[in-house]
Formats: sequence, structure tokens, C-alpha cells
Amino acid sequence: MSDDFTGDWGRGARTGIPEAVLAETKSVAALSRILSETLERGERMLFTRMTAAQFAALNAAAPGALDYDPVSRTAILGSAPANGLESPICIVSAGTSDAPVALEAARTLAFSGWQAPVIQDVGVAGLWRLMEKIAVIRSHSVIIAVAGMEGALFSVLGGLVPGLVIAVPTSVGYGVSRDGHVALHSALASCAPGIVAVNIDNGFGAACAAMKALRIQG
Amino acid sequence: MSDDFTGDWGRGARTGIPEAVLAETKSVAALSRILSETLERGERMLFTRMTAAQFAALNAAAPGALDYDPVSRTAILGSAPANGLESPICIVSAGTSDAPVALEAARTLAFSGWQAPVIQDVGVAGLWRLMEKIAVIRSHSVIIAVAGMEGALFSVLGGLVPGLVIAVPTSVGYGVSRDGHVALHSALASCAPGIVAVNIDNGFGAACAAMKALRIQG
Amino acid sequence: MSDDFTGDWGRGARTGIPEAVLAETKSVAALSRILSETLERGERMLFTRMTAAQFAALNAAAPGALDYDPVSRTAILGSAPANGLESPICIVSAGTSDAPVALEAARTLAFSGWQAPVIQDVGVAGLWRLMEKIAVIRSHSVIIAVAGMEGALFSVLGGLVPGLVIAVPTSVGYGVSRDGHVALHSALASCAPGIVAVNIDNGFGAACAAMKALRIQG
Amino acid sequence: MSDDFTGDWGRGARTGIPEAVLAETKSVAALSRILSETLERGERMLFTRMTAAQFAALNAAAPGALDYDPVSRTAILGSAPANGLESPICIVSAGTSDAPVALEAARTLAFSGWQAPVIQDVGVAGLWRLMEKIAVIRSHSVIIAVAGMEGALFSVLGGLVPGLVIAVPTSVGYGVSRDGHVALHSALASCAPGIVAVNIDNGFGAACAAMKALRIQG
Amino acid sequence: MSDDFTGDWGRGARTGIPEAVLAETKSVAALSRILSETLERGERMLFTRMTAAQFAALNAAAPGALDYDPVSRTAILGSAPANGLESPICIVSAGTSDAPVALEAARTLAFSGWQAPVIQDVGVAGLWRLMEKIAVIRSHSVIIAVAGMEGALFSVLGGLVPGLVIAVPTSVGYGVSRDGHVALHSALASCAPGIVAVNIDNGFGAACAAMKALRIQG
Amino acid sequence: MSDDFTGDWGRGARTGIPEAVLAETKSVAALSRILSETLERGERMLFTRMTAAQFAALNAAAPGALDYDPVSRTAILGSAPANGLESPICIVSAGTSDAPVALEAARTLAFSGWQAPVIQDVGVAGLWRLMEKIAVIRSHSVIIAVAGMEGALFSVLGGLVPGLVIAVPTSVGYGVSRDGHVALHSALASCAPGIVAVNIDNGFGAACAAMKALRIQG
Amino acid sequence: MSDDFTGDWGRGARTGIPEAVLAETKSVAALSRILSETLERGERMLFTRMTAAQFAALNAAAPGALDYDPVSRTAILGSAPANGLESPICIVSAGTSDAPVALEAARTLAFSGWQAPVIQDVGVAGLWRLMEKIAVIRSHSVIIAVAGMEGALFSVLGGLVPGLVIAVPTSVGYGVSRDGHVALHSALASCAPGIVAVNIDNGFGAACAAMKALRIQG
Amino acid sequence: MSDDFTGDWGRGARTGIPEAVLAETKSVAALSRILSETLERGERMLFTRMTAAQFAALNAAAPGALDYDPVSRTAILGSAPANGLESPICIVSAGTSDAPVALEAARTLAFSGWQAPVIQDVGVAGLWRLMEKIAVIRSHSVIIAVAGMEGALFSVLGGLVPGLVIAVPTSVGYGVSRDGHVALHSALASCAPGIVAVNIDNGFGAACAAMKALRIQG
Repeated sequence: MSDDFTGDWGRGARTGIPEAVLAETKSVAALSRILSETLERGERMLFTRMTAAQFAALNAAAPGALDYDPVSRTAILGSAPANGLESPICIVSAGTSDAPVALEAARTLAFSGWQAPVIQDVGVAGLWRLMEKIAVIRSHSVIIAVAGMEGALFSVLGGLVPGLVIAVPTSVGYGVSRDGHVALHSALASCAPGIVAVNIDNGFGAACAAMKALRIQG
Repeated sequence: MSDDFTGDWGRGARTGIPEAVLAETKSVAALSRILSETLERGERMLFTRMTAAQFAALNAAAPGALDYDPVSRTAILGSAPANGLESPICIVSAGTSDAPVALEAARTLAFSGWQAPVIQDVGVAGLWRLMEKIAVIRSHSVIIAVAGMEGALFSVLGGLVPGLVIAVPTSVGYGVSRDGHVALHSALASCAPGIVAVNIDNGFGAACAAMKALRIQG
Repeated sequence: MSDDFTGDWGRGARTGIPEAVLAETKSVAALSRILSETLERGERMLFTRMTAAQFAALNAAAPGALDYDPVSRTAILGSAPANGLESPICIVSAGTSDAPVALEAARTLAFSGWQAPVIQDVGVAGLWRLMEKIAVIRSHSVIIAVAGMEGALFSVLGGLVPGLVIAVPTSVGYGVSRDGHVALHSALASCAPGIVAVNIDNGFGAACAAMKALRIQG
Repeated sequence: MSDDFTGDWGRGARTGIPEAVLAETKSVAALSRILSETLERGERMLFTRMTAAQFAALNAAAPGALDYDPVSRTAILGSAPANGLESPICIVSAGTSDAPVALEAARTLAFSGWQAPVIQDVGVAGLWRLMEKIAVIRSHSVIIAVAGMEGALFSVLGGLVPGLVIAVPTSVGYGVSRDGHVALHSALASCAPGIVAVNIDNGFGAACAAMKALRIQG
Repeated sequence: MSDDFTGDWGRGARTGIPEAVLAETKSVAALSRILSETLERGERMLFTRMTAAQFAALNAAAPGALDYDPVSRTAILGSAPANGLESPICIVSAGTSDAPVALEAARTLAFSGWQAPVIQDVGVAGLWRLMEKIAVIRSHSVIIAVAGMEGALFSVLGGLVPGLVIAVPTSVGYGVSRDGHVALHSALASCAPGIVAVNIDNGFGAACAAMKALRIQG
Repeated sequence: MSDDFTGDWGRGARTGIPEAVLAETKSVAALSRILSETLERGERMLFTRMTAAQFAALNAAAPGALDYDPVSRTAILGSAPANGLESPICIVSAGTSDAPVALEAARTLAFSGWQAPVIQDVGVAGLWRLMEKIAVIRSHSVIIAVAGMEGALFSVLGGLVPGLVIAVPTSVGYGVSRDGHVALHSALASCAPGIVAVNIDNGFGAACAAMKALRIQG
Repeated sequence: MSDDFTGDWGRGARTGIPEAVLAETKSVAALSRILSETLERGERMLFTRMTAAQFAALNAAAPGALDYDPVSRTAILGSAPANGLESPICIVSAGTSDAPVALEAARTLAFSGWQAPVIQDVGVAGLWRLMEKIAVIRSHSVIIAVAGMEGALFSVLGGLVPGLVIAVPTSVGYGVSRDGHVALHSALASCAPGIVAVNIDNGFGAACAAMKALRIQG
Repeated sequence: MSDDFTGDWGRGARTGIPEAVLAETKSVAALSRILSETLERGERMLFTRMTAAQFAALNAAAPGALDYDPVSRTAILGSAPANGLESPICIVSAGTSDAPVALEAARTLAFSGWQAPVIQDVGVAGLWRLMEKIAVIRSHSVIIAVAGMEGALFSVLGGLVPGLVIAVPTSVGYGVSRDGHVALHSALASCAPGIVAVNIDNGFGAACAAMKALRIQG
């Protein structure tokens, strides 16, 4: 018995966001079938949440086909534009531990040909770090804000910038904040109006939403 | 001892979203002080989640000052533009019971001078209802989607439209869906990429986010 | 001290569903005793959720006795009918990652001598995929619907087909949908009436319920 | 601003289950509009979870139009068949407190013209009560089992009958079982295979599922 | 049968915090017995979370005995020092709706003879409001911080002041933040080290902890 | 349609615990039928969790038939032994607010003809109160311990007495301890071995368990 | 820095239950110190939840000192009575997977010199298995009932036996019953009065409670 | 792409607590960059929750640079004062399994040059162990109390000492107390007023709070 795949190749035209594959929960056999079909159709593909072991197995079978980034755990099949266009999107993260998620967002934008600055480690425990960068941040139309633990960064940003803040809670934390629910709920319950949230650790989804908000081609 | 108020009158200039007041959790005395101070400063004000009893008390003290809508439970202090400008925002709701939240979003937009169509009762149990309206919906840049129960509307919309879908889960439901957490989680876990969510029943926040996404004046 | 087993060999006659064994939580020693007793009595047996390591240990002791399928993690002891009879049951799944659960249902039906088509990867993010197959699906009396993440497939199916929809939520997802509770709750809170649910990842139980609904011999 | 209604009048033909209205979360104004539109179209309608106050207001406006049952909190608009046909469905409940939910199921079946026996107060604390009735229960194809608290009735029934058991957990209980989640989880985690569940207190949904399983006209 | 009371009159000497009574969950009869016994012993007593109805009943029986504050819902039996001593404690709250909890803390300190400034409505959505007061706040040794919703105030304060921050989450909010768990978890998971938390809405406990931290006489 | 009752009159002989009725979730009509049937059979009956309104309605119909205690919310139908026998059971409660539950246990014992001392208000915040009574408590074979909030009383007792400690968590508390789950979990997770627990607020169940442990006639 | 141990050697005399050590969460170094101190004092000791790896390390250092049972994961230091006395306690378990917990209870009793029959695999899905043994079970004063999944065994037993039923929920299950909370809540919410519960997987605690209930020497 | 670090070197001066690094969630590459930057600036640094594997990798690259303690999982970069000053802080823990958290607090104090006695294994199941030490404990101004399971130690201490009790719940336990939420909630819901809590397993945060309470230099 097998686990089949039906590519939604028209998704980009229909929704502005091309088909992508969440790798983590799929078998290597299923990923191989997806990779083959994509190659055969001459399409490009973004794989998210791909483990190092999955990449190793796929790369052994098709060496060099995938451009894999171990921090963001993303793999890109097919050539991305060498130099992306500058976008009105800015990625801001609270701490070093949030890098995988922040960079997943950046790689998703890059896959669609867009560049976005990534401003890391500006959590509110040292507010001066954020204030040093706030003018740059305010100059962007959409802010992808990435934070775990208590997610206070979302509210502080939301009170300071005119652009849309897309909060990406991360599963960074322990005790009550293990798994990211506190950061998620902080984004949703924020006292600063106009913040929106995506799922925990979903840097990919935040990048998609940012492109949709801007109606730039995903 | 008293419960004081410090208006953030510069919020509109700073974040694009003017100050608003969540009435439900405040005493009538506190609301009266806010109303007085706003009148004295010649500012306008939007009150959300105001109970009928709170409105009755405030209206008795200052007859006619507030424009109160009992379905959306919003009150507006100060004149709103008679005819709002048409916005690229569309409000879509799953069922009749979601009306208070959908209309809170519409009133928030109206307070800022924007009109948006409200397409109600198009839940996916009868998919044809949604499909009849999908062309109109697709023509808007931002869709405010309002649904309770299991919130399947969010994913179906997300797979069909190119604009940004802002999901507003509602507390409509019973049993496992009482309080709106299922609809919220459905929005966050959607298989359709690019959906964002606001807090349960937060029609106000969705309207703010929509205006921020569009960089139209809130 | 030992962990004993008391087979409920009359279960098939009494309830229409023969005895089966959930392997995952049992020691290899206990599984061996069950396997031996079943062989001695000349009975057939279905093992579900059997890990590869459990199968390897049992197969080393009794080579070839078990027919093991690694995707569905099921093992069958004793010969199944070579060609099952076509049943009025259809299995539908939302994504490639749901294959283990969808195929557990198919293997359970096959163990009882019934065939059912398995239509995979028709999640609602690309609604056209489902619509292409909807006529075939509608022609069956019972639909076993398998989906993780937000489980929107359940409601969309429930609004489109006349047959009984048995929802099997899966633990496919991350963040708020980790462990399958969102998909489960979506099935239970569905706006489409007449959907029923079984436990998360319980493809076996869905197949049993389908046979009970149809009063075909399990 | 208003809360509109879009009747899904083709639902019966499409899914076997006619349109029904969950009253509890709707305003009296909205219910009145639904009632008027239904009368105008000459359709029949089932209202569930209607409070006594809602009924009183509707009845004052349209005296006698609705047949209201205060225990099950259901109202029927339009004439039901005087004597329903006997169905292969049996309703079984654990305790006196479960009557509202058990009777909601019975009224839903009656609305579609089917009769079903209601066997009440046979919880497993006094197993003899169930055993006295088990032969009758076993003679039906579908058992709608209604229980709150710990829901042990579901598993005991599931191990004793060949028909499909549709579990309806109720919110009867206190402490850990307040709100019905324990009974719901007991149904889903049952050691007896083939039990399916609907939402807490959802007698209506159980009746719909039973009719779908039997392919009798809903 | 009756509900007896055993006063812990030595608590002040043993722990630095005198006996107090949580009124809300006690019957008027029980409160009356406590009031009588306290009067007989010539002791003073602080009642917290006393409803207006409880106060009305007690005041009818012993007019004027209790000094009741309706905002903080506290009642004091016995004379408090006319002018309390200035303490190194500062109370800061995020919004107008947090007043009952902030003032419960202030009344608890006043009952022990200490004054503390109450700086209200300085939530981080308008960060300038907090920054205007930050020098004053920094001059205190202990900060009682009161906030509901997402509780971002705790982390921002924790990163800016050298004193101990005692976070009091409040049940102000709706949707995911209903009941105060988000604010509580934000305090506990804060990225700013050295913040401590008390139970939701527990202004009394925060004041006790502040006095214990300072070893001033409670 | 009606809500029927099937008395389990043989329960006492079978399990040592006579039939009792949880009143709270039943309609007055249903309670009246139970009362009538019990009277007709000449049986005695214990009603628990009966509201004042339910008692008033029943008492109006059958004046004096029920012996109602408003604190414990229990009603006894039929004469109880005038002076119960002294039992080896002791009831201990942490605070005045726990009285309803502690007294429900006492009334349940009294209904079966047993007396037990009730030692109230000995929570561990003032450990001396418990220590003053510990010798008396230690002289009993079974201790019914009643506590809300954090339930520390259970562990302290469990470490000091040789008898069986039956913990009854109560729903007394607010914030994190609202609804009694913290006290329940404290009992279950106690570092003192040999503590057992019943449901939150279940004084009746604790008394039943105590009689079962002692094999005295319930 | 080190993790010290302070044996409570007088616990047996004070509470009837001797000191025991939960091994799982302790380092091998800490366990070694406990083992040494116990040997030096000439005491006996029961270790629960000891992993195979912990036992291997301890056994390498002190070969043969510990009597380790891998199914129950218990280790006994010091000689146990060769043939324990027959106790009025009976251990009953629902399924093969519950053996580790059922046998932990048996080993705890054996450590104190008591024998108890262990009746395994009598879950209610095949009620005849339980009924075959019910007369034997009824002849005991205390029943330790061990079950995972939905825990329906507790209620069925509670309605059939006069002795005290001590429910031990187990973490056997998946989906909603993963971790044992459903079985725990079923025990607490049982419709059969007089059932008590201990923590999930706590066979040791159930045995301690049984000995306390019987006042036999632990 | 990389995960950057922005040290908050002024934190000590601003808040009294120097910058520290939570290692567990960071890559070795990120930790190496932090270590290098800290060495270059000539600063000292405390790493918490560092796994043995992380330490091994860092130590291989910079042998001897870090002083690593495997029980508390802390690493100190830069010389700590040889003999710390005696502080008015006392650390008390309930059991041997709580040692990692208790010692994390002690190491944090030591990093800042302060000594504090660590009194271990005084849980309330054997109250005499605590009572033997209570005079010493009472002589300190701040008590850091460390306990898992049900956390009854917090309330007992809170009722006996005049100093501030900072509760550190630990994730020691299983079943309902797995992950430490029961101990956390027990601290927050304590019947003894004036207890404050930090996050589960957060010995570091408790030490920071203790230093802030005492205004000693962190």
C-alpha cells in the first residue's frame, strides 16, 4: 500500500501562493515521489520542516537537486532568482533561539524572489536593542515578528509601528511556555490593536500572508 | 479609590489605528470619565463590547451623544463620515449567529470612514452559497472571514482567493466548540497557507489589521 | 511476574467485529504469547500499531507467520481472502501524511474480506481535487474521511454527500494541531450535520464502525 | 445593521438531512425572519436548543405556529406525520438527567417521520437494568447511546451489541465531568471497537447520523 | 449543621502577615460569626473579595462597623492608621479595567499602615505613557505590576527597573485571555529575569509578598 | 415526552451503598416522580446537591416529607436513626468555605446511621490548628479530608496519620484554583503515599468510600 | 554540588507505610547513595519506576543486592518474606498492557509480606471475562482496579462489588486517552458511588492505600 | 543564514541582573559565537540549561574556558569570586530529584558572589525533617523553595516563616504532576499569603528575584 501525492499546481495562479510541501511528517518514499513528479513537470518546489536525515536520504538519491539550509530546515528544488527584489517586508525576532523560524520566513520569501531584512535578538528584556532599530522597522509595510517565551515583543511592536504586524509565536521556552502557546496567546490577546497571528513556528505561513497582504506575486 | 484613564491620543498618528475603548470590563463611572474627557478634547471615540445596560446608563447622562448599535454592541462618539468610501475589504460570515462579530468589524471600518460589503450565512455545510458569491469575494484585497463552530470556512476561502484572509473565530457553538477555541485553532492550523487570525470574537481587531494591511488611514 | 492475555474469541459473533490486538503498548513477550495462542486455536488475528521493531522480533521467532505492512503498521496472522469483495465503503484522505491511518482502515476492511477504494490527497486547500472525485465518493454509503491539521475536509464532505461520514482525525500537524485535537474537534463541531468521529489516528475503529453501520460481516 | 439568513433548502436532497436551525445563539429578530421565510416558502423546519424565552417571544408573534417540547427544547414548524414509521433505531440513556438530549434525538427522528423507542435510566452502576433490556436493544441496527458523567455505558453497550453505537456524551456531571468532556473522551477511547461519537449534547446530530447510516430518508 | 471558623490570630507574629478573610465563597452567616468573634477579641480584620450583597447584609446587622470600598471589594474592620507611612512600594497597572485588583493591593497595604502610589493605565500599547513615569517607578524597591490580556507590561517593566517586580495577572480580557491565564503565563515565561507572580486577580497576595520582601511590618 | 426513572433498589445489598439521587441536574418534575415512587415503595432516599429552589418546589407539593439541610444541600426522605452510631471515621476540612462539602459527607454518613466528628478550619497556613487536633484525628481509621485552593492539607495529613486518607478536593478558590482542579491534582500527586481521591466537591462519594473501606453497612 | 537524601526511617511507624524511593527521576549517583545508606542502616527498601539502565548501573556496583522485576520496574533491597500472607486484597486489570502497573501494586504488597491474586485482561469490551471472575473478586475487601483507555472497568466493578474499589488509571492508550487522563477522570466521575482513585500509573500508591484501608501492617 | 546574538551588556546596571544565556534551545554554532564575543569583550557569562553534549562541543573548542556543573547544568565563563559572601537567602528543596533546580539557583547566586545554604530533601511527607531545620530557615530573609509533585512544601513554609517565599515548582513527577503544573498551581493558589512563584524549573529566575528583593548586587 502506498501514500500518494496530488500536486495542486494551479495554486499559485489561484491564491497567489505556490504549492509547497511540509516534509517532516512524510516518509522518504513519499518525498521522493513528490520530488520526481516535480522534476518531471519542470516545476519548482519549496520543502519546509525537512529534517537533516530526510535531506540526507533525498540528496543521496538525487545529489545536488535540493538547496538545503540546515538552520531553517528548508529545501528548494529548482533555481531561485539569484538576487531577489527588495520587498516592503521586515523580519524581526526576539532571540537567537528563534532563528530557525525567522529564517524559514526569509527563505520562503526568497523562494518567491523577494528579499527582506532579518533583524534578530531584539527582545524587550533589553528594550534599547529594539529602539535602536525601530526607525528601520517602521519604514516597512509588513513586519513579521518572531518570538517565543511570553511574546511581549508583539505588543510592543504593535504599539510602535504603522505597518501590519504578523506574529509568529515560536516553541522556544520551557515550563509554562513549552510548545509556544503562551507566545501565541499573547499575540492574540495583545492590547495593541491590529496584530494578526499564524500557527506556532509557522514562518512559512507568515511569509505567505505577508505576500498576500502586499499582493506581490508569491 | 478610583479607576483612572490615560488616553493614548497619538495612537492614530503612530500606528494608523486610533484609540478605542473596550467597554465591557469597565465600570459605568470609568466609562463616563472617558466619555467626558473625549468630549472635552473634541476627539471622536469608538466603544466596543458595550452592553445594553452600560449604554442605557451613559445615554441617560448624556442623551444622544453616543450612536449605539445593539447587534454589534458598538457605540460611536462624534460624527462619522455620512457616506464612507468603498474599501478593498470584504466581510464574510458563516452563519446568522456570527452577525455581532461581523458587524463589529463593519462598524470599526465605518468609524474610520470605510465601507465594506458584509456577506453573511455562507458556511460550508451548503457550499453552493459560498460559490455563488466567490467571484465578488475574490475581487477584494482583504477578506475578513467570521466563523464559529469548526471554522471550516477559513480553509475553504484560503484555498480559493488571492487576497489576505483574516480569520475571526467566534464563540458560537456548544460542547467542544463552546468559547471559540476550535474555530481559532482551525484558522491557525489551516492547510491553506497565508491565513492569519485574530482573537476570538475580535471583529474590531480584524478591521484594524485590514486597514493596516492596506495602509489606508485607520 | 507476567502479563497475561485472555482472548475474547466470541467477539465476532457477539458484536460483528472480531478480536484484534493493539500491539504498540505490549511487550514482545506478551505479543509472542498472543501469537502462539492464536496459532494453537487456529484463529486469525489482526495486529494494529505494530512497530517495525516489534515485527522484526516476532518475525525472527516465527518467520513468515505475519503479513506486515510498514506504512499502516498492521500485521495479519492467517490467510486473508485473496480478493476481497467490493464494499459500499470509500476511504478519503486529506494529505500524503495521512496515509498510515487511511491504510490502517483499508487493511482492517481487507482482513474481513472487503475492498474499499482509497482516494488520497484531496484536502480542501485545493478544492478542485476533491470536486474531481466527488461523484465517485457520493456513490458510496459510508465515507471514512481521514484528515489532520484543521480537518476542514470533514465539513466539506459532510455538506456534499448523502452517506454517513466517519471522521478519523490524525495527529498530523504541529503547533496548535500537534496530536490531532483540532481535527477531532472540527469533526465534532462541524456545521454539517450527521458527521461522526472516532479517536485520533484510529483507522481501525473507523473500519469497524463502517462494517457495523452496514451490518456486513466484520 | 442586521443578521441575515440564507436557507439551504436543497440540503435534504443533497445530503439526506433537511435544513435545521440551532436557535440558542440567535436573536429573536433573526429567528423571526427565519420563521417568516420558511412559512412563505411553505417549508417545514426543526429548531433545536430553543430556550423557553425564545419560544415565548416567537409564539406571541405567531401563536400556535410552533410545536414546542420544553424537555428537549425543540420546536417544529409545519405538520409532522401523525404516526411515524418504526425505525431500526433505538435510543438508550444512562440517567434521568440525560433526558433532554435523548429526547432531542427522538424529536429529530419524529420530524423526519420515524419512531424509535427511548430506553432511559439504564446506567452501568446498576448493570441489571441494562441487562433486562439488552435483547431488545440488540434487535436494532443503530443504537443512539446517551450518557454523561464517565460514559461507561458506551463501552459496555459496544461490547454487547452488533449494531452501530452512536455515542452522545452529555454535559451532565460536576467536578471533572462538568461540560461532558469525560463522557466524550470515554466514547472515543473505548476499548470496544466500532463506537462513534458526536459532539456533547448533540442529540440532533446523532439522529442525523443514524438516518444517514441507514440511508432512510431524513 | 454549621460552617465554623478558627482564627489564626498569631499569624502576624509568625509570618509578618495578619489573618485576613476571603469573603466571596463564605455564607453571610459564616461572615457574621467571623465579624463577631473579631470584634469580641478586639482585633482588626481585612475582608477581601466581598460582594456588594455580602456587605449590605453585614452592614445591616452591624451598621458602620465595616469600611467598604466597592471598587476593590475590600472591607476593613477596625480603625486603620489615618495617614499611612510612605512605603518603598509602587503599584502600576496596565488599564482602567485592572483597577479593582490594583486597588485591592493598595487597600491591603493601607490596612497595614503603608501608602503606595498607584500609577494606572500605562499599558505598552502606548509605550510613552509608561516612559513618562519610568523614573518614578524605578525609584521604588518593589513594583506591584497589574495587567490582564497579554500581560506584556510585566516584561517591559522587568527589563527597565532594578526593583523586584511582583506580577499580578488579572482576569481582564476575552477569547483566549478570558480568566487571566495568558497574563499569568506571560509573567512566568518572561524573557526579563527576576519577575515573580501571584495568582490571578490576587492583589492582596501581591501586597503581602511586597511587605515580606521588605520586612516591613505587615 | 418525559424523563423516566428506574430505581436501583437492590444497590445496597449488592454494593453496600444504597441508591441516592443527584438532584441538581434533574427537573422538578423528574424529582417529584422519584419522590413519589420512593414513598410508594416505602424506601428511604438521600438527595444530594439539591438547590434551595428545588427543595421549595418539592416541599410545597409534599410538605415536611423531606429533611433539608441548606448548607450541605442534602435532603433526606424517610426517618434517619435518631442517634447514629459512632464510626471510626473523622471528617477534617481546611477552611470555612469547605463546609458544604464536609457536611455533605457527614449527612451521607448520618443517613446510614453513623456519626463522625467534623473538624473544620484547620488548613496548613496555620499549622498549629491542625497539630492541636492531630491526636484525635490519628485515632480514627479513615480520615475524610476536605480542602480547596492548593489542597496542601492532604499531603500534611497523609504524612502524619496511619489511617486511610480520602481526599475530597473542593471548588473553593479563584484564578488557577477555580473549579478545584489544583486541589484534586495535589491529592493525586501527593508525596505522601496512600492518599486516595474522589471527584471535586464529592462529599457523598467520600462517605460511601469510607463505609466501603470499613465494611460497615452503608 | 550534590543531590542529598534524608531518609524518613520512621515513616512506617508513623503512617503504616515504610519509606520507598521513586527511582526514575534520580541520578545513578543519588540512587547509589540511597542504596549505601540503607545497607548501612540495615533497613529494607522498595524502589519503584526503576529503569533497566538504572538497575544495570546499580547492579554492576553492588551485584545481587537488588531483586529487580523488569515488568513492574521495581527493585527490592533486603529479603522479603519467602511466602507472603494471603491478604483480603485483589488486583484486577483491564488489559495485557496494564501489567506493569498491576504488578507494581503486587510487588508493593509482597514487599510488605502480603499476597494478592492478580486477575488480568478482564476489560468490559468482553464482559463475560469479568463475569466469570466476579464471584472471586466480590470475596475480597479491597479491589485494586487497573485500567487505561476509557477506564469503564472502574464503574462496572463499582456497581457489582461491596468492597472498596481503588482505581489506578494507566497511561495505556493513544489519541484522547494518551497519558491516562481519560481513565483517571472516568474513575473520578463514575456513576457508581464509592470508587476512589490514585495518580495515573501509581500501582504503588494503590497498594499503600489498600493496606491503610485494611490497617494491616504496611 | 545565521542566528545572530546581540548582548545586553548594560542589563546589570539597568536592572541589577547581568545578562545570562539559556543554552538548551541554541545551536552549538550560536553558543560559540556568544562565547567568543563575551571573551573578546572581557565579560563574564552564566549559561543555564546547558546539555552535556553542548558543553562537550564548546569545551573541545575552548578547553577549560567554562566551569561546568553537570547536576545544575550551568556553565560559568570567567572567574567567580573564590569565596562568596554569605547572603540572607536560603534554598530549601522537597526531594532528591529537585537537586538540579535547587543547585541552579545556588550557582546563579554564586556567579554573583553570594553564598546560600541548600537544605535538601525536607518534603512534607515527613514533616519532622522540615521542623528540624525550621529555625535555621526562619533566620533568612528570602527562602527559595523548590518542589515538584504537589508542591505542598510551599504552603507549609509560607505559614511558618516571616521571610519572602519564592516558590520554584519543578517538573519532577508523573501522571497528573508530569511537567510541574500541579506544583506551580499549588504555589499560586496557596492558602498561605505572600508566596510568589517563578516558572517551572526556573532556579535561575528565583535567584535573580531573590537578589532583586534584597537589592544586593546581582
